[in-house]
Amino acid sequence: MGLFMNLIVLFEDDFISDNRVRLQGRRLNHVASVHNASAGDELRVGLLGGKIGKGLVGSINQDFLEMEVDIYDNPPAPLPVTLLLALPRPRVLKRILFSVSSMGVKKIILINSYRVEKSYWGSPVLSKENYDQYLIGGLEQARDTTLPEIIMRPLFKPFVEDQLPDIVKDITAFVAHPIAKKKFPCGIKGDVCLVVGPEGGFIPYEIEKLKECGVDAVSLGERILSVETAVPVLLSKLF
Amino acid sequence: MGLFMNLIVLFEDDFISDNRVRLQGRRLNHVASVHNASAGDELRVGLLGGKIGKGLVGSINQDFLEMEVDIYDNPPAPLPVTLLLALPRPRVLKRILFSVSSMGVKKIILINSYRVEKSYWGSPVLSKENYDQYLIGGLEQARDTTLPEIIMRPLFKPFVEDQLPDIVKDITAFVAHPIAKKKFPCGIKGDVCLVVGPEGGFIPYEIEKLKECGVDAVSLGERILSVETAVPVLLSKLF
Repeated sequence: MGLFMNLIVLFEDDFISDNRVRLQGRRLNHVASVHNASAGDELRVGLLGGKIGKGLVGSINQDFLEMEVDIYDNPPAPLPVTLLLALPRPRVLKRILFSVSSMGVKKIILINSYRVEKSYWGSPVLSKENYDQYLIGGLEQARDTTLPEIIMRPLFKPFVEDQLPDIVKDITAFVAHPIAKKKFPCGIKGDVCLVVGPEGGFIPYEIEKLKECGVDAVSLGERILSVETAVPVLLSKLF
Repeated sequence: MGLFMNLIVLFEDDFISDNRVRLQGRRLNHVASVHNASAGDELRVGLLGGKIGKGLVGSINQDFLEMEVDIYDNPPAPLPVTLLLALPRPRVLKRILFSVSSMGVKKIILINSYRVEKSYWGSPVLSKENYDQYLIGGLEQARDTTLPEIIMRPLFKPFVEDQLPDIVKDITAFVAHPIAKKKFPCGIKGDVCLVVGPEGGFIPYEIEKLKECGVDAVSLGERILSVETAVPVLLSKLF
């Protein structure tokens, strides 16, 4: 993941003057080894949570890279979606976070389900410091700067009863459910809430609870896809 | 990958009589630990390259599982696509093979590109015995039985000059190219050849060679996706 940094995400801390940044560590290594950059080269950059633009490499050596940056453009538009995802296995979660961040998802709610292994909730990936790496990797991949927000709701019932009704109020909401009769929709206008279950699917009780909130059960067809494949497929059908 | 076996792929060798199979190893372990199956349970099964149906568990113990199988139904329809993929990093290739196999791709041609690391062509994943695991995993995921075919073409120029023209003759062909002006098409009728480059993209010379064969360069938009995310997105837009 993050094999190709199509934009270098800058942080406030990187700035050593108004328009000069100094980078070390991961970003320096990437620019040196993958981009093979040298003084005078121009790289795409963007300020986390801000605009995107260009950086002119002033100096680069083993210890640091200095660039003069000019940021003036808006990042790509976000996808108008709230993604509710039954917490996947940690190493799958890392890749899904990278992938959905690159696709422009800005709000991810990790929820529980009968088929989510309890131990997943104790994974170190669930610390902000840790998962932000994958989200930022996705931004660098897609030349974006707006960090997605992650919310964790480890109790299914209180979440769907007390919070989900407000989340799906006035917007279209779908749960991907392989055995649903209704076909998954294409090209939705407006905000959407997309609910994706665990490998093996939500149990009938959970589907019922989601339906009570107005979440429509829809199917992609005969083929059951893994969560990791289903998520990009579902997002690209929706928008 | 292959965390959930939605169908158990059977091989000719599994049959101990006309309608009885005996399974050991990976499939036994999966059925025992994930499905938690016991005698009398019904499982979905399919014969590799053949029909799908049901298996009734006769006996299951630590050493083997016996089922009486009844296979009568057709597997899901394949996607009418030939996927030309610049050889990705081996561990990414494994996941992509699983994913495209689950989506119904039946012909995959692994090609070279300037940005494909030479060492990838020496990866053990490229032996049939090895990659078939991931392809079969994808079939088990999607309840399919038709094994995709993999062809390797480690020389770009001879491939595009001597073989590609025949492959794309009379069918629509696209290469995903982030800087192309034309938008990636949706809902194509008929056979398609989809070409996907390496991380970092094809170089201009390669795009030109592809265009000379009638392959149209099209873009998904502002966001550049990793190959792993792009492939399911592109396939789901096409069909």
